[in-house]
Amino acid sequence: MARIRHFAITPGTMPPGPRNAITDVPGVQVGHVTLSSGEVNTGVTAIVPQPGDLFQNKLTAAVEVINGFGKSTGLVQVAELGSLETPILLTNTFGVGTCANALIRHAIAQNPAIGRSASTVNPVVCECNDGVLSDIQAMAVTEADALQAIEAAQSEVAEGSVGAGRGMITFGFKGGIGTASRRVSLQGRKHMLGALVLSNFGKAGDLVLPDGRRPDPRVPREAEKGSIIVVLATDLPVDQRQLSRICRRAGAGIARLGAYYGHGSGDIVLGFTTCNRIPQQPETDVQTIERMSDNRIDRAFRAACEATEEAILNAMTAATAVQGRGGATRPLLVDWLRELPDKQASTAKFENKK
Amino acid sequence: MARIRHFAITPGTMPPGPRNAITDVPGVQVGHVTLSSGEVNTGVTAIVPQPGDLFQNKLTAAVEVINGFGKSTGLVQVAELGSLETPILLTNTFGVGTCANALIRHAIAQNPAIGRSASTVNPVVCECNDGVLSDIQAMAVTEADALQAIEAAQSEVAEGSVGAGRGMITFGFKGGIGTASRRVSLQGRKHMLGALVLSNFGKAGDLVLPDGRRPDPRVPREAEKGSIIVVLATDLPVDQRQLSRICRRAGAGIARLGAYYGHGSGDIVLGFTTCNRIPQQPETDVQTIERMSDNRIDRAFRAACEATEEAILNAMTAATAVQGRGGATRPLLVDWLRELPDKQASTAKFENKK
Amino acid sequence: MARIRHFAITPGTMPPGPRNAITDVPGVQVGHVTLSSGEVNTGVTAIVPQPGDLFQNKLTAAVEVINGFGKSTGLVQVAELGSLETPILLTNTFGVGTCANALIRHAIAQNPAIGRSASTVNPVVCECNDGVLSDIQAMAVTEADALQAIEAAQSEVAEGSVGAGRGMITFGFKGGIGTASRRVSLQGRKHMLGALVLSNFGKAGDLVLPDGRRPDPRVPREAEKGSIIVVLATDLPVDQRQLSRICRRAGAGIARLGAYYGHGSGDIVLGFTTCNRIPQQPETDVQTIERMSDNRIDRAFRAACEATEEAILNAMTAATAVQGRGGATRPLLVDWLRELPDKQASTAKFENKK
Amino acid sequence: MARIRHFAITPGTMPPGPRNAITDVPGVQVGHVTLSSGEVNTGVTAIVPQPGDLFQNKLTAAVEVINGFGKSTGLVQVAELGSLETPILLTNTFGVGTCANALIRHAIAQNPAIGRSASTVNPVVCECNDGVLSDIQAMAVTEADALQAIEAAQSEVAEGSVGAGRGMITFGFKGGIGTASRRVSLQGRKHMLGALVLSNFGKAGDLVLPDGRRPDPRVPREAEKGSIIVVLATDLPVDQRQLSRICRRAGAGIARLGAYYGHGSGDIVLGFTTCNRIPQQPETDVQTIERMSDNRIDRAFRAACEATEEAILNAMTAATAVQGRGGATRPLLVDWLRELPDKQASTAKFENKK
Repeated sequence: MARIRHFAITPGTMPPGPRNAITDVPGVQVGHVTLSSGEVNTGVTAIVPQPGDLFQNKLTAAVEVINGFGKSTGLVQVAELGSLETPILLTNTFGVGTCANALIRHAIAQNPAIGRSASTVNPVVCECNDGVLSDIQAMAVTEADALQAIEAAQSEVAEGSVGAGRGMITFGFKGGIGTASRRVSLQGRKHMLGALVLSNFGKAGDLVLPDGRRPDPRVPREAEKGSIIVVLATDLPVDQRQLSRICRRAGAGIARLGAYYGHGSGDIVLGFTTCNRIPQQPETDVQTIERMSDNRIDRAFRAACEATEEAILNAMTAATAVQGRGGATRPLLVDWLRELPDKQASTAKFENKK
Repeated sequence: MARIRHFAITPGTMPPGPRNAITDVPGVQVGHVTLSSGEVNTGVTAIVPQPGDLFQNKLTAAVEVINGFGKSTGLVQVAELGSLETPILLTNTFGVGTCANALIRHAIAQNPAIGRSASTVNPVVCECNDGVLSDIQAMAVTEADALQAIEAAQSEVAEGSVGAGRGMITFGFKGGIGTASRRVSLQGRKHMLGALVLSNFGKAGDLVLPDGRRPDPRVPREAEKGSIIVVLATDLPVDQRQLSRICRRAGAGIARLGAYYGHGSGDIVLGFTTCNRIPQQPETDVQTIERMSDNRIDRAFRAACEATEEAILNAMTAATAVQGRGGATRPLLVDWLRELPDKQASTAKFENKK
Repeated sequence: MARIRHFAITPGTMPPGPRNAITDVPGVQVGHVTLSSGEVNTGVTAIVPQPGDLFQNKLTAAVEVINGFGKSTGLVQVAELGSLETPILLTNTFGVGTCANALIRHAIAQNPAIGRSASTVNPVVCECNDGVLSDIQAMAVTEADALQAIEAAQSEVAEGSVGAGRGMITFGFKGGIGTASRRVSLQGRKHMLGALVLSNFGKAGDLVLPDGRRPDPRVPREAEKGSIIVVLATDLPVDQRQLSRICRRAGAGIARLGAYYGHGSGDIVLGFTTCNRIPQQPETDVQTIERMSDNRIDRAFRAACEATEEAILNAMTAATAVQGRGGATRPLLVDWLRELPDKQASTAKFENKK
Repeated sequence: MARIRHFAITPGTMPPGPRNAITDVPGVQVGHVTLSSGEVNTGVTAIVPQPGDLFQNKLTAAVEVINGFGKSTGLVQVAELGSLETPILLTNTFGVGTCANALIRHAIAQNPAIGRSASTVNPVVCECNDGVLSDIQAMAVTEADALQAIEAAQSEVAEGSVGAGRGMITFGFKGGIGTASRRVSLQGRKHMLGALVLSNFGKAGDLVLPDGRRPDPRVPREAEKGSIIVVLATDLPVDQRQLSRICRRAGAGIARLGAYYGHGSGDIVLGFTTCNRIPQQPETDVQTIERMSDNRIDRAFRAACEATEEAILNAMTAATAVQGRGGATRPLLVDWLRELPDKQASTAKFENKK
């Protein structure tokens, strides 16, 4: 599985975690179910924020909608209550309802009081449109797929054309799932901030690499119909206001690569911290929590920007070829990167003349 | 079907339309499917904003989240794009995913290009929690139910314990579906603004009638776990900014009845206008539209407030008794209203002493 | 100084604090400077949230814009950073710039490093339009007036036609400054939530008292050009997200009195808590703070609603007659309340027939 | 006055207008007053959106707050009403109140009914902190300066260390005022979108040029205390919702240069269109307006992104040396650009190794 650093390209300046993945944040796990059969190229990716019962012990969470052309579910409640109580599922646009149903049943299985003596549960599902490479009308994702993705969650994150990323496209190249992380230290304590993206955005010809090169997939420059979902995880002691601000900086990471948040691209950032868990039934009316100073938050902002940028590039370099609906395919960024330097240089010049 | 005006109670001062219903807005229709079997008391209510193909010919729409403790889907895109391209479905909290799937299939059936040569579609589903009177864990609503509610849509609106309103509770009384409308004239042209509510909010003992009386259901004052969804329809020439502001005034209608937007109550307002339709494939880059002056918008604000208030009261007066989960029931507001004046007066006094 | 409770009217059900004023929150003080000369009827009201240096030791704060037709300054930063670092000044619409300048000089006098080695300071000033009763073009408020209002701050709050409230109008009656408070207990600890309003909103004929009566000032029903500023203070351990939600409930208090947030009315709520102060130069990167559970927040919501409603009524009952620009005056609510019950009843009937 | 294109650097791909300035939008004019005396290096920049009486004939406007650490005034009302009724003034952080007062007096001089028989007026002033190079405590800007900047408005836009840009810093280099524009055609009609920035943001060492080079000012990498104000003007037929979305894309232009919206940087975008003017006293309740299709809006998004990016670079290349408070200075980007290619290359390498 190729990653962008294998090509001597280093987005940003902060040091990554040991896996350079969202799972560098302790307790975070990621699982995939990939569907690839006939004209169906889709799947489900589960981000399990912490082991154990998330409904009983919620996480502080925030949402930043950069461009709301998207069909996610659960975001309104996350914004209001600042909490996350299920795993986050990523899938294709028409799989949201089924994944939401699966999350509800998963939560009830753990907590039979849900919707009875306890409150209901807020499933969080985000999506991108893989309709170019997959038969999205098939509505192929099942509740069993969604549950299996959750069960498959582990610390090693497969990237590229896997899970929900199976049929995704980025800047005209094959896209998919990517991840990265950054170390953030706070008063001697080491913290992590990780990003995982479902990358399906960007217009062919707009990509700019961190070294200034402009890879051209030489495919038609169609209007964006894609989207990008960014999930940010951290163990920093931040409240929802701070987390929202951190999420907003993922937008800078997207823009650095040449995108301008196209009309058709649902660009949504969802963040959570594993610090300061929120009990469903607190024993006391008042909890003591930790909160970092805003005076130090620039390091988290930079980390969110860099990790997002690198996660997108990793999604592209890890992507493997997928033959999609009607035989459609998209070129691989790794092929462009492995071409002779001469050819790249001339492409870059061609691009600059546009 | 009793309505609040039958009891000589007139919320507000503006004149209602001929039906005093959301369907006074030309072209708007409402359909219900009611599920009532064993411990299941739930259903689906469909608001069909206009006849014909909504995907090809969208409506200007807006969302106002008063309290985001709710699990709706589709709202993020409505807020961003200011458009509505499916019927609006109301159901119970755990029926959202299934209703969303039904709306997707319904749209594809009309437009086979969706998700292929055309963009995807944004299903809009809102919900309240009917878990006290219904076995919400049964996830009883099916896609067929959702489609049937759409097909059942007509100009006569059944109110009370029907459709999604089957298991709802309001201020400790039985709640459900209610509707009302107001006439708004603009430069000699007659317009309508209508509200339909799925009313499931309010703490027992907090209700204040427009005449100042305070009906007490004499049930335990539990914390609110309910919600209210308000759908506002109009044919006024307003853009999304104006429609958002109109939607915000529904909150005043809710508050006039004694509610304060309780923590557990997902209070969400969704508005649309049938004016200035938005083509999926416009023939020209620029459209000519009509827009009313903000200088005249107070009449629409007042109409939204009054219609919401009256729709809630109609939901309560129309509600019929439902025996729910574990034998649970809630008293009817009509029974309180029909009691002897003496008893009411003393109740009112009792309430004031609290 | 008459208050609404003197007329046996009790808004809501929660117990007030000892002064029934925003200054029941320990450390909060309020000062006024009233300008009344010729056609000028205006002033400045200062809410000093805590004694000492607010720049060095900021307060957690939040803003809720119910209707943004207003010219306040400082709110954007409060919303982003969740902090308040100056007293809050209330004045007339054209006094905002001068009051902001005064707050800047006041902060620099305390902290000569501001704008040099330290960051700048964010002055917070809100306003209502007193142009009916005062010559607002005179721009009569001076920086010295603003500073004097801060210096005059004390625990006893003068209400009615004082300070910024001098020229204000409410529902066609004379309005002005009003305040109220509610006790909120949390795990045995007693807390306070107080409101202070600059009340200048509402259309003549729309007012509904908590007992259902509808006082009519018998003045022309002009469109609203007014506004209301609500300042909420508390010592509850809440973060900005929670405080924003509490502020939103002030809107319910406004609506209960019959308003619907008229187009021309800038309805803005600003809240702060004296808990969890935020140091300008924290000694550590991470602070330990207290936060109440959302499960208990309904009592704060109800308190915000009730205190706002009562503060508005107190502004009206405390208001004394002001002869304004061109001899304009507005009737007093106390005169209506002191009229014979017969006359009130008939007025109420008249109102209900509208 | 050097501009970035003089150095063979071309941000983006869309063609600029004839002046490559915000004043390419017909009717838009810009004026400066520069204060430079002793330790004071500050000023006022006025954007006059159209000739004539803006209060009587308002412009459709929108605001996008990327990072709300800023002290502007007037934005809340622009967001609510979607209209602009005064020139936009840019100045230093402590000059906002005085500039607001000047705008009020300027509006009253044109419309003596303001605040009397007509409503009040909403002055719009944005700011950046020039405290490193100027004695901001001097509060040197006067109302006369503000009025003079408005009177000085013309089609030729001076850039760099002029007007409000006098004391500004960008990525450790001298910053200031910059402008650029893009042509956007719509159904054969030619339109313009222009940007003007007050550029005072970015951390030394973070700047990335469009060609991938990373100019290092070789000054200490202090935390950002700056800000950027972006004013976008267009004659495209857009409503407020669309204009807000366009404004959001200015953030992508900022990010492309290497910024991540630092905590201390108040990054605010204000947009207006000269199309669809809004009369203060409309003759009819309903107006007919033009609105472009969202399907074509990507070209406006890209234009906003590119014009913002280029305006920032122009602010830097046009900036002339300013000796500021305590002798402080900042290097000029033009000096870096004029250095030998060898040296630049090595700087770039150095930067990449960080």
